[in-house]
Amino acid sequence: MSKEFPTPDAWLDHSVSYGETDAMGVVYYAEYLHFFERSRSHYIRERGMSYNEVEERGIFLPVREASCRYRISAHYDDLLNIHVGISEWKRASVIFVYDIFKDNRTKLVASGFTEHACVNADGRPVRVPDWLKEIF
Amino acid sequence: MSKEFPTPDAWLDHSVSYGETDAMGVVYYAEYLHFFERSRSHYIRERGMSYNEVEERGIFLPVREASCRYRISAHYDDLLNIHVGISEWKRASVIFVYDIFKDNRTKLVASGFTEHACVNADGRPVRVPDWLKEIF
Amino acid sequence: MSKEFPTPDAWLDHSVSYGETDAMGVVYYAEYLHFFERSRSHYIRERGMSYNEVEERGIFLPVREASCRYRISAHYDDLLNIHVGISEWKRASVIFVYDIFKDNRTKLVASGFTEHACVNADGRPVRVPDWLKEIF
Amino acid sequence: MSKEFPTPDAWLDHSVSYGETDAMGVVYYAEYLHFFERSRSHYIRERGMSYNEVEERGIFLPVREASCRYRISAHYDDLLNIHVGISEWKRASVIFVYDIFKDNRTKLVASGFTEHACVNADGRPVRVPDWLKEIF
Repeated sequence: MSKEFPTPDAWLDHSVSYGETDAMGVVYYAEYLHFFERSRSHYIRERGMSYNEVEERGIFLPVREASCRYRISAHYDDLLNIHVGISEWKRASVIFVYDIFKDNRTKLVASGFTEHACVNADGRPVRVPDWLKEIF
Repeated sequence: MSKEFPTPDAWLDHSVSYGETDAMGVVYYAEYLHFFERSRSHYIRERGMSYNEVEERGIFLPVREASCRYRISAHYDDLLNIHVGISEWKRASVIFVYDIFKDNRTKLVASGFTEHACVNADGRPVRVPDWLKEIF
Repeated sequence: MSKEFPTPDAWLDHSVSYGETDAMGVVYYAEYLHFFERSRSHYIRERGMSYNEVEERGIFLPVREASCRYRISAHYDDLLNIHVGISEWKRASVIFVYDIFKDNRTKLVASGFTEHACVNADGRPVRVPDWLKEIF
Repeated sequence: MSKEFPTPDAWLDHSVSYGETDAMGVVYYAEYLHFFERSRSHYIRERGMSYNEVEERGIFLPVREASCRYRISAHYDDLLNIHVGISEWKRASVIFVYDIFKDNRTKLVASGFTEHACVNADGRPVRVPDWLKEIF
């Protein structure tokens, strides 16, 4: 899976807190969407812009679809290694992909994607601006 | 969409709290997976069993995959109407489907599904027991 | 405790979801502040206004202090009974108090308070308007 | 405030995610209890033990009381600097204190404390073991 991962990519480490676990003793399934978002912000920042700055330029990227496959469990205090990249630019949207590992990037915990519309301040779909594509 | 919704089904109303919103002024995307879970518990309870009782009988239903499409935004204080049903029983798994509406079940906010493995207390996949299928 | 509870008051029932529990098998401690907020919104709505409407009138009530004592644990699927009231109006702030019960309002799970500043749209402290006090 | 902060202490940096904000555009008040917990785990780990290991030795530290004062707002993408220490050991409990800063430890965002009971696997209060005190 990760050998075909798109580039440029980014990695973010994240330590699992107690508040992210549930009564089954594992990370609650909705938390993975928080991990996706956290890595997405990190990725944009690492490419030289913050998502705040994207918004200040009048571009918003609301999520249109999110999907996650859960492979093995993660537990309290696990150090997760989140791999993030962009798999596709469409006319007015963009798809981010994620692989979440543990044990030093050796065990795949979960993988997924999010598709984001590109909209202006009024919420209208707009063409992805070139300056946004160019940072990746 | 909802006309082909599987039966038996269930509906759960949920009022959006401030803590479920984000800085875009709308419900944060990961919260929808909480809404899915909340309606799933309600559905099982309405069919005459609680998920606690399912676990006490030695059956666990960890999520293997979750997916959500976001159509329109939901805001603080919106009353959401969550429609839940089971679309498919597989040998050792089950798929729940969800449509989330607002404005008295007239506007579709989001829809999605979760696939759950059926495992025993050791985490091993097991055949879906008949008593579980029969309550639905 | 509840015999000295301030009036007018309100009660909100809330069913504990899996996502609100943690690996200790109980409701995670930060979730209680969500319960407080949920009951606060319900209370304002029951007095004939929504918090949205308070904000539309230019008044915001950001939390200045929050405190919670945890007495007994709450678990997945417990039905919590949240009791909410206002214990004190100060010049430019207001204190909400909460008792959270389970088992039909018989067992006290947690209790606490939140103090809210009264500010305008610029974030400046303002005197609590009479129309706000009068709804309680 | 921080000049009288207890020692040994620890610092944890935490980047605010979108999921931690609310419709007021600031970090939601319950998230601070997650930050407290995150710094607490980090602190114990930095002292040479993980909270997992504390539990494996049969000692659990459930929260009995939590309190937070909110001073200035934190926003998406802010880098928070969380200062954590232990202010008091009681016979069967311990008090952790927290100061949360932003802008390179210069602006105090929030401060608070959590009191934890020391209990065994049956949930019974027990005397704080010497090996636990000694790591701090």
